[in-house]
This record gives sequence, structure tokens and C-alpha cells, in this order.
Amino acid sequence: MNAGADPLAAYRVDAAPWYRSSAREVELYERAWVHRLPLLLKGPTGCGKTRFVEHMAWKLGRPLVTVACNEDMTAADLVGRWLLDAQGTVWQDGPLTLAARHGAICYLDEVVEARQDTTVVIHPLTDARRLLPLDRKGELLRAHADFQLVVSYNPGYQSQAKDLKPSTRQRFAALAFDYPPPEVETDIVAHEAGVTMELAARLVGLARRTRALREHGLEEGASTRMLVYAGRLIRDGMDPRDSCAMTLTQALTDDPDLSAALRELVHATFP
Amino acid sequence: MNAGADPLAAYRVDAAPWYRSSAREVELYERAWVHRLPLLLKGPTGCGKTRFVEHMAWKLGRPLVTVACNEDMTAADLVGRWLLDAQGTVWQDGPLTLAARHGAICYLDEVVEARQDTTVVIHPLTDARRLLPLDRKGELLRAHADFQLVVSYNPGYQSQAKDLKPSTRQRFAALAFDYPPPEVETDIVAHEAGVTMELAARLVGLARRTRALREHGLEEGASTRMLVYAGRLIRDGMDPRDSCAMTLTQALTDDPDLSAALRELVHATFP
Amino acid sequence: MNAGADPLAAYRVDAAPWYRSSAREVELYERAWVHRLPLLLKGPTGCGKTRFVEHMAWKLGRPLVTVACNEDMTAADLVGRWLLDAQGTVWQDGPLTLAARHGAICYLDEVVEARQDTTVVIHPLTDARRLLPLDRKGELLRAHADFQLVVSYNPGYQSQAKDLKPSTRQRFAALAFDYPPPEVETDIVAHEAGVTMELAARLVGLARRTRALREHGLEEGASTRMLVYAGRLIRDGMDPRDSCAMTLTQALTDDPDLSAALRELVHATFP
Amino acid sequence: MNAGADPLAAYRVDAAPWYRSSAREVELYERAWVHRLPLLLKGPTGCGKTRFVEHMAWKLGRPLVTVACNEDMTAADLVGRWLLDAQGTVWQDGPLTLAARHGAICYLDEVVEARQDTTVVIHPLTDARRLLPLDRKGELLRAHADFQLVVSYNPGYQSQAKDLKPSTRQRFAALAFDYPPPEVETDIVAHEAGVTMELAARLVGLARRTRALREHGLEEGASTRMLVYAGRLIRDGMDPRDSCAMTLTQALTDDPDLSAALRELVHATFP
Amino acid sequence: MNAGADPLAAYRVDAAPWYRSSAREVELYERAWVHRLPLLLKGPTGCGKTRFVEHMAWKLGRPLVTVACNEDMTAADLVGRWLLDAQGTVWQDGPLTLAARHGAICYLDEVVEARQDTTVVIHPLTDARRLLPLDRKGELLRAHADFQLVVSYNPGYQSQAKDLKPSTRQRFAALAFDYPPPEVETDIVAHEAGVTMELAARLVGLARRTRALREHGLEEGASTRMLVYAGRLIRDGMDPRDSCAMTLTQALTDDPDLSAALRELVHATFP
Amino acid sequence: MNAGADPLAAYRVDAAPWYRSSAREVELYERAWVHRLPLLLKGPTGCGKTRFVEHMAWKLGRPLVTVACNEDMTAADLVGRWLLDAQGTVWQDGPLTLAARHGAICYLDEVVEARQDTTVVIHPLTDARRLLPLDRKGELLRAHADFQLVVSYNPGYQSQAKDLKPSTRQRFAALAFDYPPPEVETDIVAHEAGVTMELAARLVGLARRTRALREHGLEEGASTRMLVYAGRLIRDGMDPRDSCAMTLTQALTDDPDLSAALRELVHATFP
Repeated sequence: MNAGADPLAAYRVDAAPWYRSSAREVELYERAWVHRLPLLLKGPTGCGKTRFVEHMAWKLGRPLVTVACNEDMTAADLVGRWLLDAQGTVWQDGPLTLAARHGAICYLDEVVEARQDTTVVIHPLTDARRLLPLDRKGELLRAHADFQLVVSYNPGYQSQAKDLKPSTRQRFAALAFDYPPPEVETDIVAHEAGVTMELAARLVGLARRTRALREHGLEEGASTRMLVYAGRLIRDGMDPRDSCAMTLTQALTDDPDLSAALRELVHATFP
Repeated sequence: MNAGADPLAAYRVDAAPWYRSSAREVELYERAWVHRLPLLLKGPTGCGKTRFVEHMAWKLGRPLVTVACNEDMTAADLVGRWLLDAQGTVWQDGPLTLAARHGAICYLDEVVEARQDTTVVIHPLTDARRLLPLDRKGELLRAHADFQLVVSYNPGYQSQAKDLKPSTRQRFAALAFDYPPPEVETDIVAHEAGVTMELAARLVGLARRTRALREHGLEEGASTRMLVYAGRLIRDGMDPRDSCAMTLTQALTDDPDLSAALRELVHATFP
Repeated sequence: MNAGADPLAAYRVDAAPWYRSSAREVELYERAWVHRLPLLLKGPTGCGKTRFVEHMAWKLGRPLVTVACNEDMTAADLVGRWLLDAQGTVWQDGPLTLAARHGAICYLDEVVEARQDTTVVIHPLTDARRLLPLDRKGELLRAHADFQLVVSYNPGYQSQAKDLKPSTRQRFAALAFDYPPPEVETDIVAHEAGVTMELAARLVGLARRTRALREHGLEEGASTRMLVYAGRLIRDGMDPRDSCAMTLTQALTDDPDLSAALRELVHATFP
Repeated sequence: MNAGADPLAAYRVDAAPWYRSSAREVELYERAWVHRLPLLLKGPTGCGKTRFVEHMAWKLGRPLVTVACNEDMTAADLVGRWLLDAQGTVWQDGPLTLAARHGAICYLDEVVEARQDTTVVIHPLTDARRLLPLDRKGELLRAHADFQLVVSYNPGYQSQAKDLKPSTRQRFAALAFDYPPPEVETDIVAHEAGVTMELAARLVGLARRTRALREHGLEEGASTRMLVYAGRLIRDGMDPRDSCAMTLTQALTDDPDLSAALRELVHATFP
Repeated sequence: MNAGADPLAAYRVDAAPWYRSSAREVELYERAWVHRLPLLLKGPTGCGKTRFVEHMAWKLGRPLVTVACNEDMTAADLVGRWLLDAQGTVWQDGPLTLAARHGAICYLDEVVEARQDTTVVIHPLTDARRLLPLDRKGELLRAHADFQLVVSYNPGYQSQAKDLKPSTRQRFAALAFDYPPPEVETDIVAHEAGVTMELAARLVGLARRTRALREHGLEEGASTRMLVYAGRLIRDGMDPRDSCAMTLTQALTDDPDLSAALRELVHATFP
Repeated sequence: MNAGADPLAAYRVDAAPWYRSSAREVELYERAWVHRLPLLLKGPTGCGKTRFVEHMAWKLGRPLVTVACNEDMTAADLVGRWLLDAQGTVWQDGPLTLAARHGAICYLDEVVEARQDTTVVIHPLTDARRLLPLDRKGELLRAHADFQLVVSYNPGYQSQAKDLKPSTRQRFAALAFDYPPPEVETDIVAHEAGVTMELAARLVGLARRTRALREHGLEEGASTRMLVYAGRLIRDGMDPRDSCAMTLTQALTDDPDLSAALRELVHATFP
């Protein structure tokens, strides 16, 4: 399976992902990279954490192995497993091992969703010795010099039960993210959706008002990604109210009162 | 197993499924399709979401891979697994991978019933890069240009515990469905059951009255499908009251009071 | 394993099962059969639902595949699985697939006992397209024209937690069953146990009085089957009180008060 | 594995198990056997249910397959499974299938301990058709004419959660057991332990007093088996008080107050 | 794997384990051994139950197979399983089967920690017939004449949920253990740690005072084993207070108040 | 897989890990090592337990096998398992077996996270006989003379549910750890981060103030490791406030009030 010269070829970020920095996060990441410090990215859904990691992987010229964590993922899903083959069993590296062995950035998205065995498996990789014990293979892997571990999570809607253990948290340097400031977000929406700055600004204003609804029971406000979706449909000729209904109102909530509140915000934005 | 030219042959919608649009959902779907936006269909049981997706798949000329989600479904059921064979292990694409690799619409029916690993597995497919990491195979699949993801759920009787996470919801544009307006539903029942417009209208009136009982404890009112069943049995010569008892009253509830209320509605409809 | 001409041979109902209809259920079933409507049979334990399905299978000349549902049954138990063999893996149809592929009536007894994946797996079979996706085999099975799905459940002692989801219920036409009227039940007991109409009538009277105890804490009253057991033992010469103690009193409850009440009913019946 | 002429050879009860009947249970069993009625034996721990079944198996000349039920037992443990072999997979009958196929009495001891799939699997065997569907093998086994199903349970300390479902109970004729009357139990202890009738009577008197403690918090009183143990040790020369401490007091409870109460009973018995 | 003449060779107790009897437990065990009575050893942690069984196995010249029970242990872990091999599947006896087949004492340490299937599996071995049904192998094993079953548990900190079922308890004769009387314990510590009787006596006095703290919230007092550890370190020249801090205080509790109380006891002992 | 001369080669600690002792823990460990006493290291996250064990392994010239415990780890993960191979099944030692067989120090980090079967599996290794029963392999392994077991846990944030059972605790001698005293910690930070003693002292002062916040709701204060991270970034030219925000404030908490309190401490430290 892993034939070929570069086992990380598929994970290289060939084209520069368009990224519009909103603070000094690029500079801080680069300094952490020098020491290969494990990084923890905190922030709300859709504020650009994933895009940021892609951008940094491209900038640093490292392949990026992304894993969407979930509560049914086992340590073996990260580390690897034995597969049965005509010649007997063959070991297959999991994504974390792949990254650690060959020197990629490994990005564990929404790491708190994972079970404990997944979070504990990364402990020795974040120690001074940067080891990954492959117990089932009987191998003690020393991480590649260019390996870095990045994890993300959203402190907004985590329950107490699903929280990083202090012994895990303390192994990471952390960067806090939030939605970009209005002028940056407008720039992003205009660029990604291919719409005018004026329409982008209107959508961003709408999004910021939905985010204020979080104090009134809305679980999350509109993300930048949603604005891009809305912008694209409007650019194609869809009525702005229909577009926002489809990409924002209906997608954000099923609650009739919150739906009505969102609808009013849309109508006020596109009178 | 996957021998042959077109691995999606069995999933093509050959005959045009009869579909009677009740709003602009066809137009909105087509615009979302242009951008391959992931779509979320919301609405009550039996209001026609599945039929609508079949209709759109036929209209757009794309194969349709449908998966009925449930809480025992694993990520491997969606993505694929290794099977043991005389020559060793052979990878078999799951329905989601099949659709993503060859360009089908993948429809995850009642997606909230699925466990988290199933819903998280679709995240990278709904990103800008449209990737499906087949970690167990060591493959990073780039979705076919014609792949689209559609999911459905019924906000009516979902518990809080079973709700889409905001980080999942925000990846979709959403279309809200409801039972069709009376004249449209009458049309559908008359066409599908092969009965007169007059009988169809009477059945639709009955259904609408059962739906009003939702405020009195009935979990769901009669669906359009039930009316079609009732109509067919009446067309065959069954007594309308017997037919409605069988397809509506007995099927909707076991509660004696609600049963009595439904029976009265039937008797008022077919005096 | 499935060698031979007729894979359903073992499931044919060769001899006519003796069945004494107590209402129009045979006629209603036959009409539903014309449209292959999925059927839901509701009613208390031992009132004859299973016997009725056997009778209808015989009458319609279709093989009958019966599955006793339980909470440990998986979707694979219904649909089928891969077995390892000297030549590699071989697919084996489960009972539902067997029935759908070759045209049998598939009877899922006590369907609410099953887990969700079992009940969801039948959804596409109850749609207009009558499909059974065998995801693990990569096959989309179109049901045989003579396939029909019948499920049963007992609304009497189901907890709220174990209830059919509305999205499942709505796919079925339903027939409600109860214990047969006294004269019919007497007929059945006399015929099945080989006793006189007079003794049968006495046993039926006793059973009806035990059923009235349901309001006083007895979970279920005596079933027709119990009366047949009691009758047979009496016919063989066992003392009627001993026979009823063994087949009714001891079998129905462990509670001392309810046992005493039942004993008194027996003594009043056989003074 | 199943080579040889008689697959039930190991299950034959060669020597007549000594059994001292205390009521008409032998006669009632024999009458139920004529009809192969499924039997439910109810009664406290150690009162002789297992011995009784062994006795009946010997008397009727049938092999006896005993299964100690437990909550981790699966349906496959009862019914059978596929085993991998140099020639591929080979089916191996489980104990229930073995008994049903070749005509043994199958005794499920403490059946309520089993999970639902175990209890549901016996339903079709207790119907008129006496079938055992081996779904995983694709075989519908018709039970041997000499097959009989016997189950036992102890109503004394079952929780509500672990109770036979009415739909299971109703399939059985039931025999209630209790500790034997004093003169019978004395006979048993004298015979089994090889002690004098006088010592046996004293031990039985002691046991009956411990059983009265059930109303004072002791979960179970001393069983006949315990008396046999005590008797044997005394016959060997152990001090009666030591013997009773070891086989009764220490074995029955850890509670200091109940221990003291038991000790006093022992001292009163052996002053 | 099981090649060679004596499958129990590794389990023989070659050297006489030093054992200092504190009551008549050796005599009582020997009498129970004559009848191969199943034995239940009750008592607090570290009071010498395991050492006692080793001593008896040596004294009786029987191999000893010890199993540390735990809640993740399955019946197969005790009984055995099929292993896959170049020639197909090979059965491997588990420790209980090994002991029953070849005549060893099988010691199940902390048996209440095991799940029900583990405790139920031993039932038929404790009956008069001394059978072990290997259902998965299709073998009904008759226990070797020298097989004996011994189980232990600690009634001190068992929850109600984890208790032996009466139907299990009643199958055993029981011996209650406690910490040895002071002079015996002093003897043991002096012998095992190689210290003077005077130091041993001081350590035993300390231990007895810690055991009295159980009424003040300490889960368990110091065991004899701890005193041996403490003695050895002191003999090597470690400061007695350091030694007791390490082997007693820190090991017994994390609670600051209880730690302080223990420290005071240590200081009072070694002023 | 385990070919080659020294199966523990990868586990040798070649370079002397820099370690700055803060108490007599090195001496105490060495004395325990003489007797191969099982050791329990207690103390807060990041206070240096792991580094200490590495140091001792290097000092004693023994290989070190480290296992990060977690609740999904099974006994087989520690002990070993059968792997399928072209020649059939091959046994592979787990890390504990590897250490016990060839004479390494086995370090179970955060042992309370493990399930019971993991903690019980170590019991026989901590007895006088130092055995490891490999039940699945049918081997009774006598530990190598140089094998030692070391476990660690953090009593600070363990719940009651996750606590070592007394029967496990009593098998260990224990060493309590805490953060090093200020002058030692300053030394460590200066050395590890390559910063001046003055900056190191300032960081240590800051850390000690964060640790005092534990009484105000902070789960854990800053660890020594965090100070090293912060120091390295400052040495590279990052603003001290940015560095502390990244390595301390953001990493320690998501709570806005605690974040503000931490920020104030940072600003007071780097005015």
C-alpha cells in the first residue's frame, strides 16, 4: 500500500491557500515551529483554524496530515494497525505515525471529541524525547525532526465532561482564535465568494449580529464559511434573502423564535 | 466484487420519479448543486424529502447513493473496510466513498441518528478541499467533481441529546420541508394511489386534521405516504373506514384516547 | 451452504396450519398483500399473531421466514455477512435478504425488541422502490415481487424507551389483534387440545377471568396456548387443578397474592 | 470435533442419581414429557432442581445437556458458531442445537441471568412447530422428537429488571420447588453425607432455623447441599461447630450480626 | 504450545513457602481437601490468603494455578479459546481448564471482581458431578480427582453491587482470615524482613494502630507485607521514619489529615 | 519482529538526562531498587516524575519501558497478544512482558487511568514470587532479576471513582513529589531553556503565583515544563508577555475570569 517514494505526497499543500491574517498568529506560530512546540488552537467553529494550519503548512513547506477527532476513534486509528495479507500481517501506519515518521504537521481537529486513549497516546510525542511507542508493533518511534503536533478545540460548547485533562493541556503552547475583525472578514468574504466589498461588508455585519444572539440561546453565530456560501449564491443571482435563509437561518437553528429573530436580521440587512 | 464498467450502475435513477413540487425547492437545490454545496433537508416524517432527492438525482442525471443512518452504524460502514479474501485483504469502498470516488449524490437519511464518528467523517468532505481521508486504507481521496453530500433530519422529535453539533450544521446549506399545501398533496395522492381528486381531497383533509392532533400528544400526524396506502386500498374496494383504520389509526398510535380521536376523524370524513 | 434448487424450501408451510379466524383479519391481510403493503400486527402475547401469519403464508402459497427480534440482534443478523472459507470470504444472506431476494414473507416477531439498526435497515424495503442495500456486499438488492414484510409487537408491556419510531411506524399498515371471542377460543382449545367443547369452554372462562386480573397487577392473563397445554394434560388424565396449577398459576406469576387469586379462580372453575 | 457415533455420549446420565422425591414432581414431569411441554422449574438455591432434572433424564433415558446461564452468554453460545479450520469455516453446534438436533433434554439453569437474545432464541422451539432457526448457518432445524426444553430460576432474589418476559413465561408449564419436608431432607442428608439419621435430623433442624432468618435479612438460608458438606466433615471427625462454621456460618454471610445469630443457632444445635 | 510431559510443571510449588499458621486453618483446609470441597477464603488485603494457598499447595504436593480476577476477564479467559494456527484453529486450555484437566488447585483471587460469566462458569465444577462444559470446544470435561477450586475475597470493601450471588456462595465451604495475632505477625516480619524481634514487634504495633484508623476513614490499615517492606529497608540502613513514610504513610493514603495522623503514629513508634 | 540481539535496545537511556534533585528521592529510589520494591510516584502534573524515572533508569543502567495508561488500554495491550502471520499465529510480548522478561524498569504513567484488568494484571508481579501469568499464551513468566515496576499518579485531580484499590496500593512503596523548591526550579528552567538565572527566577515566581490560584478554581498551576517553553520563546526574542500568554495563560484555562487573573500575574511579572 505504502509503495512509492514519498509516503506524504498526498498530504502536501501544493497551492498556497488564500489566508488573510487578522493578528500576529502567523508570527507566533513560526516561533513555536522553531522549537517544534506542540500547539493548541482554541476558538469558535468556522473562525478559520483549519485554514490557518493549512496556510502555515504551506508556508513552512511541510505536509499536513489532518484527523477529524471523534468519540469512536481508537488509538489504533491514530497509530496504526496490523492488516491481514496473503503473506500474513502487514503493519499500516496510522495518520499520526505517518506524520511522526516522515516529518509532517499532524493536525488533530476537535481533539476533545476523542476518547482518552487518543489523547494519552500523544503524551510521549510532546515530551522532550518526542517518542511514539507503537506497542502493538513493538517499535519505539523517534519523531522526525520536522514533525509537529497541532490540536484544536472549541471552548465555547464543550461540556465539563469533555475537557482536556490538565496533564494533556500543559503539554501545549496555545493560540486563541476568534472571528476576524470586520474589515478582515469582509476582505475574506469578498475574495472567497467573488462578491463586491459592499456586499461582503453587509454579510459580515449580518454575521456579527447573529453572533450577538449567542447570549439569547443561539448555540453558534454565523461562521465566515457561511458568509462565503451566501455570497456565492447571491453572485449567481439568487435572491439575497433566499440565500441567507438557506445558508444562515435554516442552518443555524430549528427553534422557531430564534429563526424569526434571524429572519428579521436578514430582512434588515437586505430590505 | 466491484468488477464491471460502472460501479454506480445500480444507483442510477432510470425512470423519472413522479414529483410534484410545492415550493421553489427544485430551483434552490439546483443553485446549490452548481457549487456542490452540502445540503441539509429538514422536515417531518413522510413529507417527501427522500422522494425529492430522488427527483433531483434524476433531474441532474447523477446516481444516488442512499444510506439510512442509525446509531449502530460505524464510520467503517460509510467509508469502507478491508475484507479477507483468498489473495489476502481487499478494500471495499463503503457507500460514502463509492459516491465520493465516482461522483454520485450521497444521501444520509436521518443523519442525527448516526453516531459522532459518522458525522465527523463527513467534515473534510464539506471543506473547501473536499477530501475523504481513508485512514484505514492509507488513502486521501479527493472527491469527484460531481459528488454532492445531502443529509436529512426531522427536527420534530429529536431529543437534545441527538442533535447535530454546530460544527457539523455550519457546513451545510439548509432547506426546510413541510407537508405539501392541500392542493399539491391532493394531486400527489390522486396520482400515486390512482383515485379521484375528490377522494384524494377528502383523505388530505383527514390527514391535516390528524396533524393538528400533534398538539394533543400524537407524535406525528398522517404522512402523505399513508394517504397513498389508504387510497389504494379504497380503490381496490376496501371500505374507506377499514382502510383508514388500517393505514392511519392503528399505524399512528397505541393510545386508546388518541385512537378514539382518530377514529372520530375518520368517521367524520367517511360518514 | 445454499446449494440446491430452492433456497426457501425449508421455509415453506406445507401443511395447512389450523386457524380459526375471529374477525375479518384474513380478508384485510389479503387486500394488503395485493399491494405488498408492509404490515404491522399489534396485540397481546399468545393471542395468535404468529399462527395467523403462518396461516396467511400457507393460504398465499408463500414461504415464511420468521425472525424473533431481540436487543442483541444486529443488522448483520438480518441482512447477512461474510464468512471465511477455504476459497476466501463467502457472502451469506441473512433471513431478511433471503426473503427479499427469493420472494418470501419475512416476519419480524416483536420488532420493538430489536435495536435501531435493525429497524432502520427495513426502511428502504418499505419505500416505493423496495430496495435492500447490502452495503457490506456492495449490492443494492431489489426485492422480489412476492416479498412482503410483516412485523409484530405487543403494545401492552412496551416501555416508552422501546417504542417504534414514528418514521418506522408510518411505513406500515396495521392490524390490531386481541384474544379471540369466547366461542372462537373455545373452538380453538377444543380442536388443539383434543378435549370436549364443555371442558374447553370452562378453560376459556377461566382464562378470561385471569385476563381481568391485569388490572390488579398481573402482567398478562392466560393465553390461548396455555389453555391448550392445560387441556392436553387433563385429557391425558391429570387432575384439572394440577394441570391448571402447572400451566397457568405457576407460569403466570411468582407473586404470592396473585398466585392465591389465580388458585381460587382455578378452584371455582374445577370445584 | 463431533466425530464418532453418538454426539450426545458424554451427556448420558449413566448411573442413577440418588433422588428422594418430596412431592408428586416426578409424576407431573412425566406427564409433561409425554407432550414434550417446555418446563419451568422455580425455587430457592440448592433445593434440588438440578438433581431433579438429572434424575428425570436418567429415568426417561435421555441425555441431559446443562447450560449455566449468565449475562455474558450470547445467543451464539447456545446455538453454535462457525469455527475457522484448515479447510475453511466449520459449523459447530452449541449446546441447545446439539440437544435439539439429536434429542436430549436441554436444561438452562438460572435462565433469567441470560440476556434477551438467549431467551428469545428459545421461542420458536417452544412453539407448536418446534423449530430452531440457525440464521448464521442458514438452517432451519426441526427439533428431534425427544428434545425437551427445561429452564430454572429462583424467584427469591431476582430483581424486577431481571425477570422473564411474559411472552417467554407463557411458553412453559411450571413446577414450583421448595426445600424438602424435614423427614425427606433428613433422609437425603443421612444418605448423601453418610451420617446417622439423628445427626442428619439435627442438621436439618439447624438449616430450617437459618431459613427463618431470611425475614431478618439473610439472603438465603442453608441449602441441603450445605448440610451434606457439614455432615461429611463431621463424619470425618471434625468438630461439629467447626464444621458448621465452615460450611454454614462463614459461607452464608459476611454481616457480623447475622454471623453471630447463625453462630448461636449452631451452638444451640451442638451444645 | 502445550508440548512436553507435564503441562503443570510451571505451576508446581518447588520450595516450601515459609508460612506461620495463626489458627487451625491448615488443619481445616486439609479436611476440606479430603472431600475436594470448594473453598472460599475471606479476609482483608495482605493478611496472607495467597501465601496460605501456596503453602497448602506445597504441603499437599499439588500444582497451584492462580488467577487474579478482574471485571474485564471473560469466561474464555478462564476456560480457554481457539487460536488460529497454520493448520487451522487449535484449542488452548485456559487456567481453570488446565487445573481441572490435570489436577491442580485453581485459586481465583478476588473472585467478586470478576463478571458473572466467570463466576457462573465454576458452578458445574462445584456440583457433585464436578464437570466443566467447554461449550466452545464441544467437550464436557470431568475434573481430575485432584482438582480443587479455591476462591478468595475481601468482604471489607466490597460494594453491594459486587457481591457473590447466594447461588455461588452456597457452593463453598468458607474460612475467615484476619491479620495474624501480634506474636505471630512479629514472627513473620522478623523472619521475612530479616530484622530483630524487637524491631518487628515495634512495626507490628505500628500496623495495629493504623488498622484502628479504619474507623476514622482509612480504607485499609497496614498489611503484613508493608511491614516486611519497611523492615527490609530499615535493615539496609534507611532511617526508620523514611522507611515507614515510603512503605506505609505514602502508600496508604493521599488524604492530608490521614497522612498527618499516620505520620504521628510513625514518629511515636520511632521517636 | 523481535529479531536481533537485544530486544530492549530501543529502550536504553543512552544520554544522561539532565536531572536536578530537589530532595532525597534519588537515594530513596536506590534503596528500593536493591529490593526491586514496586514503586508508586505521587505528585502533580509536570513536576518531573517522568524525568526522574528516566534519570534513575540511566543511573542504574537499566532500559526503561514507559506506558501511558488510559481507560481504553486492555490487559492485552500490556501483556501481549497473538498476531496472525503467514506461518500461523505468533506471540508478541506487550511492553510489561518485554520489561519483565528481559529485565527493564517498566513505568506505568498515570496508572489510575487504566481499567481494572490492567491494574490487576500487575498483582502477581508485585508478590514475593514476581510472576506474570500469560494466560493466553499458556506461559507463567518469572520476572527477570533486574525487572522493576514503577507506577505514577496524580492525587490532585483524581475522582473517587478512579482511585487505586487498596489491594493494589499496598503492593507499592511510595514517593511523594511536588514542584521543586524555588531555587531548584530556577536552576532547572535556566538550564533547560538556556536563559539567565534572573529570567528563570522571574518565571518561577510567576509559576508559584499561578499555583496559588488552585484554591481559586484553576485546575492546575503552571508546570516546570511550561516555564521552559516560555523561557525558550523569550530567549528567541519573543515578547515575554506574548510568550507567557501562549505557554501559560491560554494553555492553563478557558475561563475568562481566571484568564484575566493570569494575565495580571504575567503583567506584574513583566511590567
